[in-house]
Amino acid sequence: MKSPLKNPRSLIRPLVHDLHAYVPGEQPKIKGLIKLNTNENPYPPSPRVLKAVKAAVDGRLRLYPNPTAQVLREKLAKLHGCAAENIIIGNGSDEVLIMAVRAFVEPAQGRARKSKSLVQYFHPSYSLYPVLADIHGAAKNAVPLNANFALPSVAELKKGRVWDFNAALTFVTTPNAPSGSGYATAELEKLCRATNGVIVLDEAYVDFARENAMQLALKYPHVLVARTFSKAYSLCFQRVGYFVGHAELIAALDKIRDSYNVNGLGQVAAVATLDDLKYYRANFRKIITTREELSRSLTLLGFRVLPSQTNFILAKPPGGALTAKGWLQKLREKRILVRWFSQPEIKDYLRITIGTPAEAKALVRAVKAILQAV
Amino acid sequence: MKSPLKNPRSLIRPLVHDLHAYVPGEQPKIKGLIKLNTNENPYPPSPRVLKAVKAAVDGRLRLYPNPTAQVLREKLAKLHGCAAENIIIGNGSDEVLIMAVRAFVEPAQGRARKSKSLVQYFHPSYSLYPVLADIHGAAKNAVPLNANFALPSVAELKKGRVWDFNAALTFVTTPNAPSGSGYATAELEKLCRATNGVIVLDEAYVDFARENAMQLALKYPHVLVARTFSKAYSLCFQRVGYFVGHAELIAALDKIRDSYNVNGLGQVAAVATLDDLKYYRANFRKIITTREELSRSLTLLGFRVLPSQTNFILAKPPGGALTAKGWLQKLREKRILVRWFSQPEIKDYLRITIGTPAEAKALVRAVKAILQAV
Repeated sequence: MKSPLKNPRSLIRPLVHDLHAYVPGEQPKIKGLIKLNTNENPYPPSPRVLKAVKAAVDGRLRLYPNPTAQVLREKLAKLHGCAAENIIIGNGSDEVLIMAVRAFVEPAQGRARKSKSLVQYFHPSYSLYPVLADIHGAAKNAVPLNANFALPSVAELKKGRVWDFNAALTFVTTPNAPSGSGYATAELEKLCRATNGVIVLDEAYVDFARENAMQLALKYPHVLVARTFSKAYSLCFQRVGYFVGHAELIAALDKIRDSYNVNGLGQVAAVATLDDLKYYRANFRKIITTREELSRSLTLLGFRVLPSQTNFILAKPPGGALTAKGWLQKLREKRILVRWFSQPEIKDYLRITIGTPAEAKALVRAVKAILQAV
Repeated sequence: MKSPLKNPRSLIRPLVHDLHAYVPGEQPKIKGLIKLNTNENPYPPSPRVLKAVKAAVDGRLRLYPNPTAQVLREKLAKLHGCAAENIIIGNGSDEVLIMAVRAFVEPAQGRARKSKSLVQYFHPSYSLYPVLADIHGAAKNAVPLNANFALPSVAELKKGRVWDFNAALTFVTTPNAPSGSGYATAELEKLCRATNGVIVLDEAYVDFARENAMQLALKYPHVLVARTFSKAYSLCFQRVGYFVGHAELIAALDKIRDSYNVNGLGQVAAVATLDDLKYYRANFRKIITTREELSRSLTLLGFRVLPSQTNFILAKPPGGALTAKGWLQKLREKRILVRWFSQPEIKDYLRITIGTPAEAKALVRAVKAILQAV
């Protein structure tokens, strides 16, 4: 063990030394906790989905799952009006996002920033994008959203000179997280038409929005739409997400995919989900109703709540003795967990997942109690 | 859509254009097929494991799984006599293998072959390693095994001048696939002591072998041992594998890990598996007995069967009218699926997974019938 090369630190790439790992929302196991911090769906999967998954828990677990999740791809193709060749399934949509970085972005060499090594995204948006760029050794371009987290127009982007219209890969969270703002398909289309690299429209929350932009993935060869079964379809536990897009981009992603990347019971659950969309659509309506009611209640209590098209809201607590981070702590003391981000643009806000009506009521009660105590 | 950049092919990295995807073994759905081609375990998971997984199929599916698979890591740490910090769980062991490439190997720049960009492995061994190197843009060094797939000694490697003792990452499949040859821990230790980069001892099949080299991962800071629940523990469907090694290497791998890379029901299944090891150890003994009996039977029929310490055998059919590829076809006609590889070193062999005693008998019957018909 005398060789200096066996110092474990020296065995690790310098790039990896410099990484800051993505910090996922807490998953604490505290009894009675109301968990409104990671945008999970408050409703369980449909009884039919649970039945289908249970029925699949048998000797087949010894066998490899279908390597391309073929049945699921075919069902999704039918749903979206395309072919299975337009779809790739990931171990959660996080996996398809990192696959896009690997397939379309060259690692940066030296200091010169080149478009072909650039991962571009609006700020604030999904905090995973810069992490994925760093892991890949790509350059990053975080472009500020407009006031109230609105999408800048192409003219504004041109004028601003920060947007790179040739960036190898651009991520757009639509509707936006963490603000909840929805973007019109017409706006997104203009952005896509003006941008030359690959654009991922990350629609993780789109089932709670007024419109979706799936048509753009089927119309433009450089546009991919990302979807997930996690949030809207209550399947976080089983890790199933996907891209829809041009067959040639999908084939490229498929070449760098782990051979058996999607676990078998996840495939079974996702297929069964597509057979029971009525159940989920009813849940979307319930969540949207709760979202609107909670927004009104918090507004009446002095919060500034941004209009949301997702299953969460971004809300600025009333000015007073407590900062947003202070609110996070006070709510936690009352066993309600929400999320707070330290970035300057959003540090005065709380991101609150929409739970059940009862959870929303408990939150409002807790807020009232905190306001009275301050 | 006039921009030439929107030609989808131009959006894909040249590296990806040049990739050949890893070809997994077939997973056909043919009724009555005896499937001896992908080294799956012929026995189902233990009844306790199936019960535990079924019991977990409930409302929790809506929640994210534990991001670090903490309960599983702690249980594995106890089993292997180390700490949870010495263990990282992957979406199958394939995922931890690619993570090692990403964390320890620099993508190659230009044509000069440098040790820090080198992925090294013996040939033949697991055919995924060169695929992983190519995906990462790393250089490859495939070093021939000795006759009968034995491990070359350090002296032989020095003399041969092909082995790079400073390669950033070396994979050793032990026991070897596709030959089934087992390697002594003492031999492996000498190789590890003489090699300066990270060494992964890929023990996917070690539960069927006479010894394992786990102690080396706990003794040497540059050695990682890869294990999987797929084969020995009948959990291919649920994708759970892991590395054991120095906490600093594990922490580096953790930084590039997808935040929720291991699905929840896979975690539940793996934890329950560790609570019922007796069931699995009985299966290992059954499979080893079947392996030895099948080897004897095929030897008597004129096959040259290599001694195996895995759940498969590599067997050269008797010389005659049929090539090994011809045998593959004839067996397939009799609804028995085995695996054939086109590489020169093994193209005269069939790789046959050890199934149940009944499946072994059916194979022997089919072989006899084919021999009589030729």
